[in-house]
Amino acid sequence: MVGICTKMKKLANDDHRRLLHSFKVGIALTLVSTLYYVTPIFKGFGSSTIWAVLTVVLVMEFTVGGTLTKGLNRAMATLLAVASAFGAHHVAILTGGKGEVILLGIFIFLIAVVATFLRFIPVIKARYDYGVLIFMLTFSLVAVSSFRNHETFMLAYKRLMTIAIGVAIALLVSVLVFPIWAGEDLHLLTATNLERLAGFLEGFGAEYFGEKVKHDKIKSKALLQTYKSVLNTKATEDSLANLGRLEPRHGRFRFRHPWKQYQKIGSLCRRCAYLVEALSSYIIRSESQAASELENNTRIRDACMDISKESRSAIKVLASSVKTMTTLSDSKNHMTAAAEAAKSLKMTLSEEGLLIREALHIATIVSLLLEIVSCAQDIEVAIEE
Amino acid sequence: MVGICTKMKKLANDDHRRLLHSFKVGIALTLVSTLYYVTPIFKGFGSSTIWAVLTVVLVMEFTVGGTLTKGLNRAMATLLAVASAFGAHHVAILTGGKGEVILLGIFIFLIAVVATFLRFIPVIKARYDYGVLIFMLTFSLVAVSSFRNHETFMLAYKRLMTIAIGVAIALLVSVLVFPIWAGEDLHLLTATNLERLAGFLEGFGAEYFGEKVKHDKIKSKALLQTYKSVLNTKATEDSLANLGRLEPRHGRFRFRHPWKQYQKIGSLCRRCAYLVEALSSYIIRSESQAASELENNTRIRDACMDISKESRSAIKVLASSVKTMTTLSDSKNHMTAAAEAAKSLKMTLSEEGLLIREALHIATIVSLLLEIVSCAQDIEVAIEE
Repeated sequence: MVGICTKMKKLANDDHRRLLHSFKVGIALTLVSTLYYVTPIFKGFGSSTIWAVLTVVLVMEFTVGGTLTKGLNRAMATLLAVASAFGAHHVAILTGGKGEVILLGIFIFLIAVVATFLRFIPVIKARYDYGVLIFMLTFSLVAVSSFRNHETFMLAYKRLMTIAIGVAIALLVSVLVFPIWAGEDLHLLTATNLERLAGFLEGFGAEYFGEKVKHDKIKSKALLQTYKSVLNTKATEDSLANLGRLEPRHGRFRFRHPWKQYQKIGSLCRRCAYLVEALSSYIIRSESQAASELENNTRIRDACMDISKESRSAIKVLASSVKTMTTLSDSKNHMTAAAEAAKSLKMTLSEEGLLIREALHIATIVSLLLEIVSCAQDIEVAIEE
Repeated sequence: MVGICTKMKKLANDDHRRLLHSFKVGIALTLVSTLYYVTPIFKGFGSSTIWAVLTVVLVMEFTVGGTLTKGLNRAMATLLAVASAFGAHHVAILTGGKGEVILLGIFIFLIAVVATFLRFIPVIKARYDYGVLIFMLTFSLVAVSSFRNHETFMLAYKRLMTIAIGVAIALLVSVLVFPIWAGEDLHLLTATNLERLAGFLEGFGAEYFGEKVKHDKIKSKALLQTYKSVLNTKATEDSLANLGRLEPRHGRFRFRHPWKQYQKIGSLCRRCAYLVEALSSYIIRSESQAASELENNTRIRDACMDISKESRSAIKVLASSVKTMTTLSDSKNHMTAAAEAAKSLKMTLSEEGLLIREALHIATIVSLLLEIVSCAQDIEVAIEE
């Protein structure tokens, strides 16, 4: 019990917006319930009122973009479905009697098959998944109830109105009470990813080149692990970029901010993290040997230190330039310095004699292949278990 | 329009179970609608019937595990919420008059805040997200309607019964009509991931060591890209493993099959894919140089060929042994051969003189660092854009 409390406290502290969002949902839900209790808006809507409550619960998402996407999907899909269901109903009535039931059944079957299949299409899955679901649902509801209850028009009208009220309340609370923007989240995620990559290089410098850094041994060991969370950010990024598309101008972001560019930067960050993962798994496996051999060759060691230091600084500056959305003259300097260090390292290698320079290419391929072999062995062991 | 049709055809051909699932949703939905039309089961349920239709649409998932998880979540959450809402209603009645409204409002607010916050907890998000949502929703619905309509008991009873019927129909169709199991999906995904890694090594052998393989140049170039889809499989794997937990015995899988082990294998496969990514991005950047230098050193070249060939064969055998769930004596042989080749490569390197062996460690770190620098430069360019 105490464990759960500590965990929940940590969750809230990690990102206080989580607590904020919880209160926002509470406010929106209480608002829609109160409207039902005390005002005459819902008089005459009877049991349809529940659709407004339902809509608020289902449409309120963590980000404004999420609420907007779901709200629009729900509202548009309901409108379209009600219209189509009316069409189907009128066609079915023409046949009369038993034919009506059979025809409505066929319509429902066809709509369900087509809509379910549409949800597999990647673009639709990413943006309109909820809308297609609601279309299928509302079409069936209206078609089914149209058979028994010939006041279908009122039912559909009430459903539309109450859903519109629900969406409006969810959107208002989402935008007016401490809004959480998907675009800003994506923006921060990109900066954080860059910082994490820089963090690894910092820990790497401290651990393997004995660079002096501000923090102690334990902290720099921990820094070596930070990049891990960059490896699996693709899904989050794609969804945030999709939700950001719909958000209106806010803060420093205009409507239709180039969110695609963030996805591009994100995929490059992941490529960098993959390389870091390869480097880190290689180093862990041959820790003492690599360190002592680098120790013996100070020129290469210094050049490696420079490269790692300058790229780290460059990435750090890039992270803060993403954060502040300013231009990046400082990062250019560090980047040039890193490129210079890389060039001079290549020079050093060629001075050290042909063998080492030739060996460079062979060695990289060889050692990564060796890594792949031992990774394959680990897989074998896991499969045997 | 033609483009869309071709795309949809491709989607259906890639995995014919998508079409199957669409038809299953159609069947389930038509079934529940037909029950409503023709049988007296729903007589007396009035407009509550829509909950059964709604439940079928919302609960039918692609896999049996998915349907089971959502169905159980929906049924249990509704039951709990109805019970709690009754409790809240009775407490509120005690105060009477205006106090009743205020107290119910406070209850709804508190439930909404706590439930929304619970959804941020990773374990709950993975397994009970839908249940918590439905709990919040049903509690509000019953609490809200209990104020106006004092026949709340009937409403709650109808909602429970119709939801149970909906869940039952969705589950029956899911299990009886060509079931699609999450566990089997996870099983196949693991085998496919291994095959893709082997595919890369095959293409690698053909491209860089001129190994003779069955397919032509274009095919082997394409093989070099197959591993990319392994990089981002974490989310899919985790969700399938979660859904598989609930599935009953089916085919070769017993209830509580060790799905966790698949996640472990999956994470090792991803680690291997990260190494492959590092190798491949390194090779692309220095294609001609690496090839020509390996050309000059036939002993190392042959050893690399052996390593790549044997690991590829071992991984291939592992993939088919996962697929068929048999033991893997064959893969052991290949693995031993790969390890032997790796060992003899290390021997060769030490015979070639100290320099190249020393260089191995330095070179790997150096070239990966150089890769990281150029990756960082790409990131800079992307941020500037």
